[in-house]
Amino acid sequence: MPNEEPQYKAKIRVIDYSTEHIQESEVKTVAECMPHVKSKKSTTWINIDGLKDTKLLEEFGANLNLHPLVVEDICHTRQRPKMEDYDDYLYIVARMLSYSDKSNSIESEQVSIIVGETYILSIQEKEGDLFDNVRERIRKGKIRRTGPDFLAYLLLDTIVDNYFAILEKVGEKVELLEESVVKDPSPKSLFKIRALKREMLKLRKSVWPLRELLLNLERESTGKGALIKKETALYLRDVYDHTIQVIDTTETFRDTISGMVDIYLSSLSNRMNEIMKVLTVVGTIFIPLTFITGVYGMNFKHMPELEHTLGYPSALLLMFLLAVLMLLYFRQKKWL
Amino acid sequence: MPNEEPQYKAKIRVIDYSTEHIQESEVKTVAECMPHVKSKKSTTWINIDGLKDTKLLEEFGANLNLHPLVVEDICHTRQRPKMEDYDDYLYIVARMLSYSDKSNSIESEQVSIIVGETYILSIQEKEGDLFDNVRERIRKGKIRRTGPDFLAYLLLDTIVDNYFAILEKVGEKVELLEESVVKDPSPKSLFKIRALKREMLKLRKSVWPLRELLLNLERESTGKGALIKKETALYLRDVYDHTIQVIDTTETFRDTISGMVDIYLSSLSNRMNEIMKVLTVVGTIFIPLTFITGVYGMNFKHMPELEHTLGYPSALLLMFLLAVLMLLYFRQKKWL
Amino acid sequence: MPNEEPQYKAKIRVIDYSTEHIQESEVKTVAECMPHVKSKKSTTWINIDGLKDTKLLEEFGANLNLHPLVVEDICHTRQRPKMEDYDDYLYIVARMLSYSDKSNSIESEQVSIIVGETYILSIQEKEGDLFDNVRERIRKGKIRRTGPDFLAYLLLDTIVDNYFAILEKVGEKVELLEESVVKDPSPKSLFKIRALKREMLKLRKSVWPLRELLLNLERESTGKGALIKKETALYLRDVYDHTIQVIDTTETFRDTISGMVDIYLSSLSNRMNEIMKVLTVVGTIFIPLTFITGVYGMNFKHMPELEHTLGYPSALLLMFLLAVLMLLYFRQKKWL
Amino acid sequence: MPNEEPQYKAKIRVIDYSTEHIQESEVKTVAECMPHVKSKKSTTWINIDGLKDTKLLEEFGANLNLHPLVVEDICHTRQRPKMEDYDDYLYIVARMLSYSDKSNSIESEQVSIIVGETYILSIQEKEGDLFDNVRERIRKGKIRRTGPDFLAYLLLDTIVDNYFAILEKVGEKVELLEESVVKDPSPKSLFKIRALKREMLKLRKSVWPLRELLLNLERESTGKGALIKKETALYLRDVYDHTIQVIDTTETFRDTISGMVDIYLSSLSNRMNEIMKVLTVVGTIFIPLTFITGVYGMNFKHMPELEHTLGYPSALLLMFLLAVLMLLYFRQKKWL
Amino acid sequence: MPNEEPQYKAKIRVIDYSTEHIQESEVKTVAECMPHVKSKKSTTWINIDGLKDTKLLEEFGANLNLHPLVVEDICHTRQRPKMEDYDDYLYIVARMLSYSDKSNSIESEQVSIIVGETYILSIQEKEGDLFDNVRERIRKGKIRRTGPDFLAYLLLDTIVDNYFAILEKVGEKVELLEESVVKDPSPKSLFKIRALKREMLKLRKSVWPLRELLLNLERESTGKGALIKKETALYLRDVYDHTIQVIDTTETFRDTISGMVDIYLSSLSNRMNEIMKVLTVVGTIFIPLTFITGVYGMNFKHMPELEHTLGYPSALLLMFLLAVLMLLYFRQKKWL
Repeated sequence: MPNEEPQYKAKIRVIDYSTEHIQESEVKTVAECMPHVKSKKSTTWINIDGLKDTKLLEEFGANLNLHPLVVEDICHTRQRPKMEDYDDYLYIVARMLSYSDKSNSIESEQVSIIVGETYILSIQEKEGDLFDNVRERIRKGKIRRTGPDFLAYLLLDTIVDNYFAILEKVGEKVELLEESVVKDPSPKSLFKIRALKREMLKLRKSVWPLRELLLNLERESTGKGALIKKETALYLRDVYDHTIQVIDTTETFRDTISGMVDIYLSSLSNRMNEIMKVLTVVGTIFIPLTFITGVYGMNFKHMPELEHTLGYPSALLLMFLLAVLMLLYFRQKKWL
Repeated sequence: MPNEEPQYKAKIRVIDYSTEHIQESEVKTVAECMPHVKSKKSTTWINIDGLKDTKLLEEFGANLNLHPLVVEDICHTRQRPKMEDYDDYLYIVARMLSYSDKSNSIESEQVSIIVGETYILSIQEKEGDLFDNVRERIRKGKIRRTGPDFLAYLLLDTIVDNYFAILEKVGEKVELLEESVVKDPSPKSLFKIRALKREMLKLRKSVWPLRELLLNLERESTGKGALIKKETALYLRDVYDHTIQVIDTTETFRDTISGMVDIYLSSLSNRMNEIMKVLTVVGTIFIPLTFITGVYGMNFKHMPELEHTLGYPSALLLMFLLAVLMLLYFRQKKWL
Repeated sequence: MPNEEPQYKAKIRVIDYSTEHIQESEVKTVAECMPHVKSKKSTTWINIDGLKDTKLLEEFGANLNLHPLVVEDICHTRQRPKMEDYDDYLYIVARMLSYSDKSNSIESEQVSIIVGETYILSIQEKEGDLFDNVRERIRKGKIRRTGPDFLAYLLLDTIVDNYFAILEKVGEKVELLEESVVKDPSPKSLFKIRALKREMLKLRKSVWPLRELLLNLERESTGKGALIKKETALYLRDVYDHTIQVIDTTETFRDTISGMVDIYLSSLSNRMNEIMKVLTVVGTIFIPLTFITGVYGMNFKHMPELEHTLGYPSALLLMFLLAVLMLLYFRQKKWL
Repeated sequence: MPNEEPQYKAKIRVIDYSTEHIQESEVKTVAECMPHVKSKKSTTWINIDGLKDTKLLEEFGANLNLHPLVVEDICHTRQRPKMEDYDDYLYIVARMLSYSDKSNSIESEQVSIIVGETYILSIQEKEGDLFDNVRERIRKGKIRRTGPDFLAYLLLDTIVDNYFAILEKVGEKVELLEESVVKDPSPKSLFKIRALKREMLKLRKSVWPLRELLLNLERESTGKGALIKKETALYLRDVYDHTIQVIDTTETFRDTISGMVDIYLSSLSNRMNEIMKVLTVVGTIFIPLTFITGVYGMNFKHMPELEHTLGYPSALLLMFLLAVLMLLYFRQKKWL
Repeated sequence: MPNEEPQYKAKIRVIDYSTEHIQESEVKTVAECMPHVKSKKSTTWINIDGLKDTKLLEEFGANLNLHPLVVEDICHTRQRPKMEDYDDYLYIVARMLSYSDKSNSIESEQVSIIVGETYILSIQEKEGDLFDNVRERIRKGKIRRTGPDFLAYLLLDTIVDNYFAILEKVGEKVELLEESVVKDPSPKSLFKIRALKREMLKLRKSVWPLRELLLNLERESTGKGALIKKETALYLRDVYDHTIQVIDTTETFRDTISGMVDIYLSSLSNRMNEIMKVLTVVGTIFIPLTFITGVYGMNFKHMPELEHTLGYPSALLLMFLLAVLMLLYFRQKKWL
């Protein structure tokens, strides 16, 4: 579960751009951002890393006229992805996933995006993000003629595209686990299966609500003076398609993982059965032999075989032959 | 199941407030409340603890013009959470959960809330509630300019927030159980799993209908002269989001608990298999040895080994070596 | 399954009432009922017990202007609960359940209710019903100012309330079975579980369609000149809530019963495992001991132990100690 | 799967009727039918048995103005039940089931029904049908005043009523199988269960789409000049109710059949356990006895018991008592 | 998963046709196609095999005025089947399946179809397709009077019809696997089952979205100046019906495959049980015999049987009889 008190101090980066210009800066106060935001000629992207400074967020809230609930939701990092329309701005919550090699698990970070008429405010839980390529594209200029809605699309697209990378990682884990479950089934496997199940659940929780979020965003484009332009809606539909693909793959993985419990139990009982079978076969071979030794160990006075010089070797031979016969029989029956 | 005849005598607390004033009192008769209720300038919160005094409730019903079915529903404490619009007032039923350390289980109490134009009437099954912080907030004054609809939101929000605390308790139980199921699987575990399942069901029954309840409440805000104001609808949406989170966690727990049966059965059969394996290995080692003693126990006249001075020690050595070889083989095969 | 040819001769009881009067009678012919039915000033409740006399029903059909299909449906007692609007009257089918102590199972009886403008016609499969308290309430007068729609509500309410009693019976059975499954799992248990499942199915089939039926009835109240009055709709909503509660409990029971198969299989395999474990432990203790007796039963010439006076007692002691050691080891490992 | 090239030559039967007359004939050419079809005063029922003669069907298609796709669908006998509105006529596909005692399975035959303004064209895969009672009713005259829509209802009603007979057959099979699964569980049982499952699937595929088909047919009655009259819609609703009943029973059977796998596995493992238990008990009784014989088979010089005259009988007695004690113990523990 | 960089160089085939003429050609540049496309009198089908040449596709995109996202989607070959309406043209993605005998699995290829007013552009991932019969039908002339919408129908119909062939192949595999699972259950079977499950999933992913696609396409026919004509909508409904049939069969196979895990586990445990039973029976027969030899191997002085001349043969006989009796008993109990 994400820590509600992240350790990073907020870092504010502003990119202000229009077809003609681009200006990047790192600011310290909210006041520095406001002129950019108010200018209707340019699009302003304010990005905040880290949530510790709730005061800062409240200040932003006051300046951008955000509803207190929005500021609260930004700070409580366990929101489900959702989209809320506050007339003047859209409030989008998405989850950015990353695969931590340290904990060997998926980590989830809340990204809040405020889409205003002239600006975008994006707030991330931790420093470090996936948006560098978006920044690069802005610098390159091609997309500078589009507004905040297209920037929102770019951010969401980046987040969803990253899910494919996560899925690949998970796919590898699934395959490795599948192999180990068959080769070396142990109670640990069951825990690994369940851990993987939980990972998938985390993924699922991040992806499923995105579906509705994107549909809602797309629908925003229909009204007059809508914050999402018609042209952007087509692009959002594309992200939607990707989301469906991610969901499809997630469901396939979930299915595979569920099936693993069957394989695990079957492998386990197979191994056990193999052992018991071998042991029982060993026992079964020796029991009749021991019976024969028992017969010749009886103390009857009149046992002609005992007197015979070849009695002992014949008895040994008999037992040897019997053992060989039984082995052959078991092998022929494929019990060994 | 909640007792339909609670042991507490009803206790009526009235808080009457507006932006300018606040007045708290504990009253004995319905008549004392009515002036507050009728005043359009202030919001009145009447809170009743205990349901024993059905007469009192009927009197309230008559004074506040409540439908007989509402009074009946208040008294029958097995209602599902629901919201009913009676034009003049809204009737809300929710369930307040608490974790009883005594019975080590979740206990559920019905809270009925009547939202009128100028008043709120809340009726609880038992004394003691979660609403002290709401009272504190009223006293502090900030929210005194809002009406009964916002107070209803505050009560519902408090109830839902408490579910998170309950979920945490349940989460701990789930984890403990999971551990015990693996370490020491016993038929008792199965019962504990089922008990936990039932707890989750209780939680589920309280939370799921809340979802619809809150959606309906939100929708109430659309008409003219609606009892729920537009500003409050946003806050209700927030409670709705929390409810979805509670539902999500509940479902995850349910999933985990369901998976435990698999783990339990697998642990059980694992333990059993381990025992049987060890016992069978012991048997398998001694059976061939016993066969050898059988051979030298045979009474053949001509058995040269028997005559030899080193016969006995060699036989012992042979058996010892055989036992060691078998042990090594079993160990190498990881059967031990 | 209900017998399509009930053994009872039809018995017609008529209660005609208004705020001012009440008149109860048992009639023999349809003609006797018609004046009551035609009077717009009073509500007439005609109750028929037994379906054998299809001619009688056809006559009623002709007099009350019922559609031939309605008469057919009344006679075929395997209808699902449903509500059909024939403009002049509503046709309601519900199922009245009773718990037969003889067959130790739930028995289901079809109740058809025709709600006209001035009359109610209720037809039951068998004599004896749950409606005596409804009759009592009519006699007491309070509800005499309401029309046929309210009477229909009372009948449905009585039927649904009775489901709670049935559920209590079933609940007891479920608990008893759960106990017996753990204590004494036998193939019979499995059959009892399946029988109970079938009972639940019967209940389910009676209750689930009621949900829709009641929603439809409620909706009937919206049109002008509707057969269901607005005031009654509220009461129907109350029955609807009860139905949901019944459904909830039914589903919980179904869940519990499904879980029992797991418990049964686990108990069974537990018992078996316990037996096998004990037997195997016994075997495992004696196998090494027998090996020792084998050693000293060998016929080697030079076995110094055999000559020794204390040889025999020491061997016995050795074997005794070995057995004790093994027992202790097994106990410490909790295998016994 | 139905054979796409049925072996029967088409046989065309025409029944032309109105309130005043009825005329039955077997014709050879399409031309003979057309005068009947064109007459607006009478209803014409053309019934074709056998699909081999696709040319004939195409000719009918051309004369009745049927869409090429309809003719194609009639010939391809793997259609799901469906209803298509082609303005001038309705195209209905249903499946007629019969229980073949030879193959001991349900056989399914496609019935296509074209409902025109003045005629019905019904095409069946094979000769022999369930419609004789419909013909009888037409001859009797009562229903001769109704049009093609009522005839369509009669045909569909006959088809659905027949499903109840099929369900009864299946019910018997289910019961027999359930018994055999408990008494004599064998791998064959599993196959029988799966075969039965497939039968249910066949039934399901025929019945489920009927539900929608009938709802759509009913809806056809709302427009002006609709091919389905309002009066007939009520009757279709009745068939719809029957279909729901068939579906309900089918689902119950499916449930029962699914549960059988559990019973089968449990019976199987029960039987196996019983055998293993008995065998293990036998082994467990003899192992300690053999140990005792081993003790007295040791060759120690000083074993006082051996010298005693009563040594041998006492040893035998000791062993006998031990065996009896163990048997009693096992019996008391209910292991035998 | 399809390779995103197919190895084939694009190959462009153009068929331009109207009722009067047909002209087939293989072109190298986009420019060669444009005159055909622009002519309103003829329908032009441009087919591109291979996706390597993204430049070519972009050029087509520019000339045909396609949205950049469409070109992107054509190149990314992991799209789900979908239909998008871009006013001037429809963009359809479907998946063409083929059964590769080499890899013994279903291979999936993305087919993009652009339906314009006067042209169709179809793009396939790999060379070689199923559309030769469509080309043949165009050459034969019958369908030359229809427009691009009918051609789109023909392509989709061909793709869906091919699914039936795939299903037949899969059906054979399912049957073979079912047999092998019963006869020779091995851990491999489980993997084969899972592989087959994955195949079905692939099929499912291709077929399910087609359902919606076709419904949407059909709906396209309702507007004025729609790209899909009313006459074609009927044909699309036919493809839709086929798709439903494919889905039905797919679901049946999925069900069968799921059931196989049960059969596999049951077969496996059956085999194991058989082995253990035989071994245990062997053990059980010899244990009492060995006990008897033990008795006569005791060294008591006074054992009268030992002295008797017939002692030994009688003992042997006794043991033989005992063995026979036990065998008979086991056989009668059907344990052997």
